[in-house]
Amino acid sequence: MRHDFRSIAWRNNAVVVIDQTRLPGKLVYLRCTSVQRLWKAISRLEVRGAPALGVAGALGVYLGARALTTRNPLVFSRAVNGIARYLATSRPTARNLFWGIERALSIVKQFPDQPVPCVKRRILVEALKVIEEDRASCRAMGSFGARLIKNNARILTVCNAGVLATIDYGTALGVMYAARAQGKRLSVYACETRPLLQGARLTAWELTRHKIPVTLICDNMAATLMAQGKIDCVITGADRIASAGDAANKIGTYALAVLARYHRLPFYVAAPRSTFDMRTRSGDEIVIEERPGSEITDLWFTQRMAPRGIATYNPAFDVTPHSLITAFITDKGIIRPPFLSGIRRMIA
Amino acid sequence: MRHDFRSIAWRNNAVVVIDQTRLPGKLVYLRCTSVQRLWKAISRLEVRGAPALGVAGALGVYLGARALTTRNPLVFSRAVNGIARYLATSRPTARNLFWGIERALSIVKQFPDQPVPCVKRRILVEALKVIEEDRASCRAMGSFGARLIKNNARILTVCNAGVLATIDYGTALGVMYAARAQGKRLSVYACETRPLLQGARLTAWELTRHKIPVTLICDNMAATLMAQGKIDCVITGADRIASAGDAANKIGTYALAVLARYHRLPFYVAAPRSTFDMRTRSGDEIVIEERPGSEITDLWFTQRMAPRGIATYNPAFDVTPHSLITAFITDKGIIRPPFLSGIRRMIA
Repeated sequence: MRHDFRSIAWRNNAVVVIDQTRLPGKLVYLRCTSVQRLWKAISRLEVRGAPALGVAGALGVYLGARALTTRNPLVFSRAVNGIARYLATSRPTARNLFWGIERALSIVKQFPDQPVPCVKRRILVEALKVIEEDRASCRAMGSFGARLIKNNARILTVCNAGVLATIDYGTALGVMYAARAQGKRLSVYACETRPLLQGARLTAWELTRHKIPVTLICDNMAATLMAQGKIDCVITGADRIASAGDAANKIGTYALAVLARYHRLPFYVAAPRSTFDMRTRSGDEIVIEERPGSEITDLWFTQRMAPRGIATYNPAFDVTPHSLITAFITDKGIIRPPFLSGIRRMIA
Repeated sequence: MRHDFRSIAWRNNAVVVIDQTRLPGKLVYLRCTSVQRLWKAISRLEVRGAPALGVAGALGVYLGARALTTRNPLVFSRAVNGIARYLATSRPTARNLFWGIERALSIVKQFPDQPVPCVKRRILVEALKVIEEDRASCRAMGSFGARLIKNNARILTVCNAGVLATIDYGTALGVMYAARAQGKRLSVYACETRPLLQGARLTAWELTRHKIPVTLICDNMAATLMAQGKIDCVITGADRIASAGDAANKIGTYALAVLARYHRLPFYVAAPRSTFDMRTRSGDEIVIEERPGSEITDLWFTQRMAPRGIATYNPAFDVTPHSLITAFITDKGIIRPPFLSGIRRMIA
């Protein structure tokens, strides 16, 4: 599969990302030449998607490290750690962001005595390695996951776990691309994913561009499609997976998992190893980002769609308990219950 | 409870409705002086809500009958029947619309030989009776339903089943108003109700105006609130209820019913007798209105929120099977399972 856009890349001394807030209207690239600008891009969801955030984390550390003028390794190391801590505050839930940052930081720890320019170069090499690994990992996930997809499958997904959320192929959507590459026909129902409409704006755009038939629905319509027998399985991505298998993902995922269970449909979560957080045992421990209520009440609207000053609750993610998950599709293979041992074996 | 607005009324030879598409920004009244304009108002959801549509149906028949110039009872009767059939095509699902139309028509059938001006007057009297009955019926529902509400209850609702959907008090929201009048404290979570945002625009507005604390959420957040133990019960209205107890209501209701069952929460449906359709046995027989995909893809947005030409599926309602309903709150009392006999006893 080839496409003519790149969600995130290192180009001409800048982290270049697609400004995903402008899609599907405009395909605009955003050059982040400072850590501050990248922080803002992550926090505003101009760049988003767990694996893409992993790359943003690694490249972001390099972007900051590169600008440091010190030649003292100790001063450099402290400064890079500070940059990393700052970058990590841009969004609290996605495991991959922290993982990408840690990957870059590990280089600093690994070569404490090397000349600063040399360490900088090694950080860039590591960040580019994260990019290449993500590409390979999505292909592997696709290949494992495609076996679960029957010909003529009608798949429900939420948010965007595709090319735009990764480097090249996607997690949940990567499984669909791989199934299609195997000659299977499939069609997708995309939940629009309120409040920020990543399903409508990004998944519908991306699948259309790759010629996979997609029908857009509001999030509250998924249950009806299931009751009508129009869905064969649900596949979503994940932002963080605890070692017990509880998975944080875009708000609305948990509801789909409950609905899938009620309608006896398989519910798959596609995620690379970097999304698994072995230090978090259960979903209760996962910090859920709450975002401004204005995302619900007035973003993008020409007329007010809610009373002024109305109270809101706007969690960006929810946690699906492992008991509702049929299987994880990872870059190392499919993990089925019992998850605690399966995840330990596959990931650790 | 007093309020300073009226969802629908007969005033100065016109059906006057609040243009609900302008809320919460503006409280604008719309004068419908022709059946065509009223048809458009119903079809565009400028006036909406099952009980309010019952009144619109009855007043609409009068509006059309009034304009007829014939003095021949037979010609008059045929013309009024034509008006009724036309008006009934404005929306297909809400039982009350047909019921209101039938109420007005029954007068024509009842007095075939009376002078036309006299029959016209009787139709108006009947339509005004529908208004008064709705007022009384909402109060009765409120009074029965309030007994189900505990002090400090946290109630989830969807769409708008309040003053705006009825004449004076509401169905689901009427229960909340009545509970509050009994001195109970309560707080409400309002699902925004995509695609047309009746929850955000109307319920949030109406409850705020009546000083009931309300928190607005996206539809896909309800499951998380339930999992967090922040919801005590769900109360919704209904657009049509089959004799077996399957209830059609705004899209998203069915999902809430499944989620409520999974989280062991009571799920109540508040509706007057006029919403029960004893000629429809089960939910499978209920015609579900499908509305234009543009409601999902581009209504109100300043920038495109979905790719051009994207396929959509936009059912306006769904059907909640009776097995997921804890009880019906009607104007004659609470109906608990088994519903088939309970509904027959209470409604017929």
